[in-house]
Formats: sequence, structure tokens, C-alpha cells
Amino acid sequence: MILTVTPNPALDVTYTLGQLVPNSVLRPSAVHRRAGGKGVNVARVLHAVGQDTVALLPVGTGDGELLRAELVDSGVPHEFVGTGGATRRTTTLLSTVDDTVTLLNEPGSRLSEMEWQELADAVHRLLPSASVLVCSGSLPPESRTDAYAQLIRMATRAGVPSVLDTSGAALLEGVAAGPAVVKPNASELRECTGLDDPLAAARALRARGADAVLVSLGPDGLLACTGEGVWRARPSRPLRGNTTGAGDAAVAGIALELAARSSWPRVLRQAVALSSAAVLGPLAGDVDLEYHRRELRAVAVEEVDLEDGHAAGVNR
Amino acid sequence: MILTVTPNPALDVTYTLGQLVPNSVLRPSAVHRRAGGKGVNVARVLHAVGQDTVALLPVGTGDGELLRAELVDSGVPHEFVGTGGATRRTTTLLSTVDDTVTLLNEPGSRLSEMEWQELADAVHRLLPSASVLVCSGSLPPESRTDAYAQLIRMATRAGVPSVLDTSGAALLEGVAAGPAVVKPNASELRECTGLDDPLAAARALRARGADAVLVSLGPDGLLACTGEGVWRARPSRPLRGNTTGAGDAAVAGIALELAARSSWPRVLRQAVALSSAAVLGPLAGDVDLEYHRRELRAVAVEEVDLEDGHAAGVNR
Repeated sequence: MILTVTPNPALDVTYTLGQLVPNSVLRPSAVHRRAGGKGVNVARVLHAVGQDTVALLPVGTGDGELLRAELVDSGVPHEFVGTGGATRRTTTLLSTVDDTVTLLNEPGSRLSEMEWQELADAVHRLLPSASVLVCSGSLPPESRTDAYAQLIRMATRAGVPSVLDTSGAALLEGVAAGPAVVKPNASELRECTGLDDPLAAARALRARGADAVLVSLGPDGLLACTGEGVWRARPSRPLRGNTTGAGDAAVAGIALELAARSSWPRVLRQAVALSSAAVLGPLAGDVDLEYHRRELRAVAVEEVDLEDGHAAGVNR
Repeated sequence: MILTVTPNPALDVTYTLGQLVPNSVLRPSAVHRRAGGKGVNVARVLHAVGQDTVALLPVGTGDGELLRAELVDSGVPHEFVGTGGATRRTTTLLSTVDDTVTLLNEPGSRLSEMEWQELADAVHRLLPSASVLVCSGSLPPESRTDAYAQLIRMATRAGVPSVLDTSGAALLEGVAAGPAVVKPNASELRECTGLDDPLAAARALRARGADAVLVSLGPDGLLACTGEGVWRARPSRPLRGNTTGAGDAAVAGIALELAARSSWPRVLRQAVALSSAAVLGPLAGDVDLEYHRRELRAVAVEEVDLEDGHAAGVNR
């Protein structure tokens, strides 16, 4: 079972609009609501491809009621930690005219010390049946920045590898706890290392404690910096669609292959294939399973030869 | 008591943002939630100025829970009709950079025949203690377009004057029922009459059955076309602020003076003063009471002499 933890989940609402024109009255032609937050999206993708998973998340008042109801309906296995604050909402404005995706992200409510402890206790209780721990998304406001680091250390003690997908101080402190993989995107990586070159920045994060750094490069795929080498993986073709949740699908692919102890090229292929399939899914956490099957064979993976900067094709 | 009916209420959420840039991730610096819908805003303003009022509205699932809780907390007297569908949400995006106000309005859920009947029964029960009936806002999806007309006729039979503030077919059919006042804005008026000139369009609505037509002209104030003459009222100065709810505050002013059987110039003065005070209030339904007191003396009202197009100052 792959355990995902989402400390700052959200009710994800998607409005389909014409053009997003500021200073006007906009009437969404479609409104979709679902349980969200990055770890919930990861679990949703894992569940869709038949992987045993549990999404662990705190759920509070306000939009928390709708989040609970939708997640129960979805069939994605989950465990809730009930909290006193209001669960936040994130709103995605999808324009059908110019394909822009605009996100309105509420900050969320802080967790009390006791609520954090309950969440950590639940991780501790679930770890013995977990093959991978995924820590995903922002921390709630006023959290200790080492919150993910504590969970990662707990997993390491239980012999469970961790995947960390967050940003800023939570990423830097989490990296120090030695996760198996961190998956920043290019701007998160630049922000937390101060380095423009993704490879140099990924190496800097490895030097700080991460076993491997997989950088998501949007439509250009993934760059992997590992103890066994450096790889680049590219999707077989550019895609148009909803990119919200594509990074979460990549994390699902990473966790899936980490659980199977696959080679890095296979990890990358899976991550890029699921990420592409997610762009074609209508909402964050949806994947086009047929496209995923085809793309898994079509992703281009090449090992980067660091001596002469040459990238050689790899097909294992 | 002034009775307001809001068949399609909403949880009003206001996000305070920097610039609204499409295709970006926006993090609101402040999030406010309150019970909304035009008739609820009208009741809120009436309550704020000390006028006895009751807001009558259907409330369903989803955001209905938050709407209920907020309205109870607000102290605004209200009566709920419980319904099975989800209550909608409207989101206001307030940019602090360029003062734009962008609205995201969900359509709402349809009311069943039985739910409509319960709402009408509640109006019938409350009318004997009402001095004015206010019918405000859009009808829920799939409503009979004569829904407001039925309520207005019920009020007329009970000897209670009605104020109607809606648009499209609901406005046209409502006008035919003979409300004391309809308050379209310039674009609603143009849309439903096909006439560009506000005075000509207002006369057309009077000819269709409205006793008086008060057209809101945004920052330019109000134009009143009545059986006793035509008046223009202008705020004393241009104002910057949140214009959402300014029209509802104007309706509150109209209802307030209609209940007091005031002269048209007094009705207009009150409507413009409350509307201006609402622009200075942070959220729809808030009014700056001190500004309202001062503006009530400062609004310029002039009678429009139709013979020579000359507008003469009026001070009664």
C-alpha cells in the first residue's frame, strides 16, 4: 500500500469559463467539486491504475464537509483526522477560449499541536503496511517547517522510502531528513537553491540529503539526478489540456515504481506517462488510462553523459 | 416590517487579491464569506439602518450550511425554507492593484414545485405584517418566469407595495403584475426593452405595468420615471470602493422610503445615499453609516422638465 499524506487538503472546485476578463461578471458553464490537495490527487491516480493506496488527511469544517462526502463517493481509500478549523478551497478557472488555467488558492487553517500529533500517529500506525510514504503539498499556515522531516524520519525508521513534493522551507527541511525522492518543479527548485541550472540545483538538493531529485519540467518532462546517474525523460508529444494535477500524477508514477523497486529509467517513464495522461483527464487526479498505456511505451528516456554533456538513448 | 424574498441566494465569498492575472496562481490575502443574494443584501442594509426587516430565502445543501450559519450570526432577521438542492456560491475577486471587481457567479439549483409553494406560502404568511415586499435577484434555473409576478400579485391583494429588482424574462413578467417600483440598471433596462435611451426605456416599462421605474446609473446615480414626474439624483462625489451590492443598497433605500410613504425626491435621495454608503462598505450589504448620514443631505435631486429638456433643482 502507498500511503499519501496531505496536511493541507482542499476542496478543489473547477469552473469552466469563456475568457477570464477582469472587471466583468463571469458565469461558469460547468462547476465540478472534488476532494483535492496534492496527496489526495496522488492517491486518486494510484487508485485509478489499480495500486493499493490510502490517502491520509485532516478534514475540518466549512468546505471539509463537501470534501469528505466527495472522497467517500470516489472510492479512493482514505483516512480522515477530524480538525477544528475550516478546510480550504482551491478554485481552478479553466478558460475554453484561450486554454488558460488560473488558480485561486486559499491558504487553509492551522492545525493545533494535538491535531498534528493525531496526523503523525496515524502515519505511524499505517507505516507497517506501507511500501512508500508520499508527503505532498503545502503545509497549513503556521506549521513547523520540519513537519514533513519528522514524517520522513518516521518512515525511514520503519524501512519505508519517502517521496516529498513540496516547496520552500518545508522542502529544504524535508530534504535534510533524507527522502528517497524529492520532486520539485523548476521554479520550486530555483527558489529553494538560488540556482538557475536545474542539474546544478538538483545536485545541491542531493548534497543536502535527498537520495534522488526528480525535477518536473512541465511539457519537457522530467530530469532525474540520482546516485546511479542522470536521466532525462520526455513525453512523446506535446499535449493540450488541464495541467493542474500533472505534477501529482508524476509523483504517483514515482511512488508506484519505487514500491516495485524499478530502475530509474522505468520510474521516469511511468512518471512522464502518468503525468501526460493526467493532462488529458478533465480534472486534477483524473488520468486517461488508454493514453497512459500507449505513452508508457512511447516516453523517450536518455541517460545524460556528464563527461561530454552528451545524452545517450536508453531503453531498459 | 420590510419583507425581502431571494429565491436564488448564494454564499458570497470575497477574495482580496493583487492583480487578477489569467494563467497564474493567485493566493487571496483575505477571504470573507457571508450570506448573499440580492434580497439578503437588501435586508442587511435595512437592518444596519435600524429598519425592521425579514429576509426570506430557500437554503439547501453544500454552501447552504455556511450561508445559514453566517446569516444566523449576522443578526439579520430571516426565515429559511429548507430545500434539497445545493445552495450556490458567488465569488467576488477584488483587486487591490487596479480596483477591478470580477464576479464568478454559479447558476444555483432549481427549486421543486413543492419548494416554490413553500416559499410562496411563507410570503403569504408574512405579508400581513409587511409594509413593503422586495423581490430581488435572479430566479433559480428552470424557474417559471412568472414566479415574481405571482408574489407581486399576492402582495397587491394584501395591500402591500412591491419593489422588483431582477432582469430578463423575470423582470418583464414581473412588471406586468404591477409592482410599485422596478429598479433595473441601465444594461438590464436596455436588454429587456431594446431601447438605448434610459428615459424612453423606463417609460416603456411603465407602459407594461410598473407604477414607477427607477434606473440605477452606477456612479451617475438614479433616474426615476413615475406617474408624478421624472427625477434625476446624483451622488455628491465620485467614490472608489466595492460596487458589489451598491444596487441592493439602492433598493433598500427605495423600500425604506416607500414604507414611509415619502415623496419621490426623498426616495431618490435615500437610495443614492445608501448606495454610495455601500460602495464604501467592505463587503456587499455593508454600509458606512456616517457617510450615509452626511450624503443624505448632499445628494443632488433635480426634476427633469420634459417640455424643454431642462432639469430644475428640487429641494423638498
